[in-house]
Amino acid sequence: MKPLILVTNDDGITSRGIFNLVTVMKTLGEVIVVAPDSPQSGMGHAITVGDTLRLTESSIFEDVKAFECSGTPADCVKMARHFVLKGNRQPDVVVSGINHGSNTSISVLYSGTMSAAIEAAIEGTPAIGFSLCDYGQQADFSHTAEYVKKITSQVLEKGLPGGTALNVNFPKKQSQPIRGIRVCRQANAKWVEDFDQRFDPNGRSYFWMTGKFVNFDKGEDNDEWAIANNYVSIVPCQFDLTAYQSIRELNETWNILK
Amino acid sequence: MKPLILVTNDDGITSRGIFNLVTVMKTLGEVIVVAPDSPQSGMGHAITVGDTLRLTESSIFEDVKAFECSGTPADCVKMARHFVLKGNRQPDVVVSGINHGSNTSISVLYSGTMSAAIEAAIEGTPAIGFSLCDYGQQADFSHTAEYVKKITSQVLEKGLPGGTALNVNFPKKQSQPIRGIRVCRQANAKWVEDFDQRFDPNGRSYFWMTGKFVNFDKGEDNDEWAIANNYVSIVPCQFDLTAYQSIRELNETWNILK
Repeated sequence: MKPLILVTNDDGITSRGIFNLVTVMKTLGEVIVVAPDSPQSGMGHAITVGDTLRLTESSIFEDVKAFECSGTPADCVKMARHFVLKGNRQPDVVVSGINHGSNTSISVLYSGTMSAAIEAAIEGTPAIGFSLCDYGQQADFSHTAEYVKKITSQVLEKGLPGGTALNVNFPKKQSQPIRGIRVCRQANAKWVEDFDQRFDPNGRSYFWMTGKFVNFDKGEDNDEWAIANNYVSIVPCQFDLTAYQSIRELNETWNILK
Repeated sequence: MKPLILVTNDDGITSRGIFNLVTVMKTLGEVIVVAPDSPQSGMGHAITVGDTLRLTESSIFEDVKAFECSGTPADCVKMARHFVLKGNRQPDVVVSGINHGSNTSISVLYSGTMSAAIEAAIEGTPAIGFSLCDYGQQADFSHTAEYVKKITSQVLEKGLPGGTALNVNFPKKQSQPIRGIRVCRQANAKWVEDFDQRFDPNGRSYFWMTGKFVNFDKGEDNDEWAIANNYVSIVPCQFDLTAYQSIRELNETWNILK
């Protein structure tokens, strides 16, 4: 039996990234799409509580059952599992993306693409978030297909360690071919924001958040290094946020615990 | 010099939880509030990209400089640091909450309260998210003040291990007093959703997401156990999501990496 593959993303169901992802997935199995009806970038692991959700069937992909959802990427995965596929066969793998823009390093926390993958991992389904480190409107996805297929096939064949989802980033298309795949740790980097203050026609101020990415990491085993050196980066991510080493440290040093 | 304490939350600046938190913080230092202007529950680590932000000074707290922000909890922390306090002294501690409802176990991922604390940790500031495991409109916060003060004082005195923020949950007020504080790991549990389908006056369907919390964890060292046994739970949380043990496993078993 062909594997069942659930596809979602955070840029919305009409984006070029999800079109590229669906095209590859159709060569690997039976595909179903549940994706946001509008862009959801920067949504992190948001879910819709205290408001309603819409779900509408879509004919945007030829020969592929697809639904657009008014919610977040994490909502899409939940609705796929607990409504669209309720009582039926569940996906063998969940793939999310291909995101228009990098989700390396700390960006994984803000990423709707990765939150969908992590939501699937919570449900026990192997999951992969794919992102292309190119924010351009005309970004070239042509070098990603071969690796998207290889990586998804490997996950379908071998599964993933429990409690993890993969954060896969592709370098921007270069004149040289990609040098290979590196399994990495999340680089130590952050965004330093600035707020561009403007005034609306009524004289009230509003702000655009802008930011620059600052990389503190000098290592060669992290995702930023891999991308800068034209490798595909894979970071296995976990949803258990416990800092285990800190439990002992607090127990040993805090006097309010005695 | 008195410590500078930044207070935020995800239930919005008018909630009873933040009022309780500000009241305690005024006894510990100089307080500044930057909090959402409306409820932001379930926002996870969402940030506002592709849309504008508003920030308005508020006189809701007596003798405390306060601002309400149209963005998410993570936006509030970013705006506090990079706009409100830009070029000035930065907070010695960031506290978020007190959330109306539990943020134990997997809920930490969906929690706006904790995303604010984690955002501060990314900036290198010690940070604590406080939540009360009581969703009731009339929830009793009276048992939390003593522990909020103790825990924040301890963090101000000793700092926190780098790269971590604390996820503190309080049991619902019982007839018996709280038994103490436990430093815990995140329990292995998840939400199982259901979607309540209804029809609007135009006959189009919409959904309410509902869910029940399922705890798979039999241990006594996790936050669910602590809360169930009337302890305050503290989970040190990290924002490096790398599953380090899986890096070796993938390198050893995947043949597309050779």
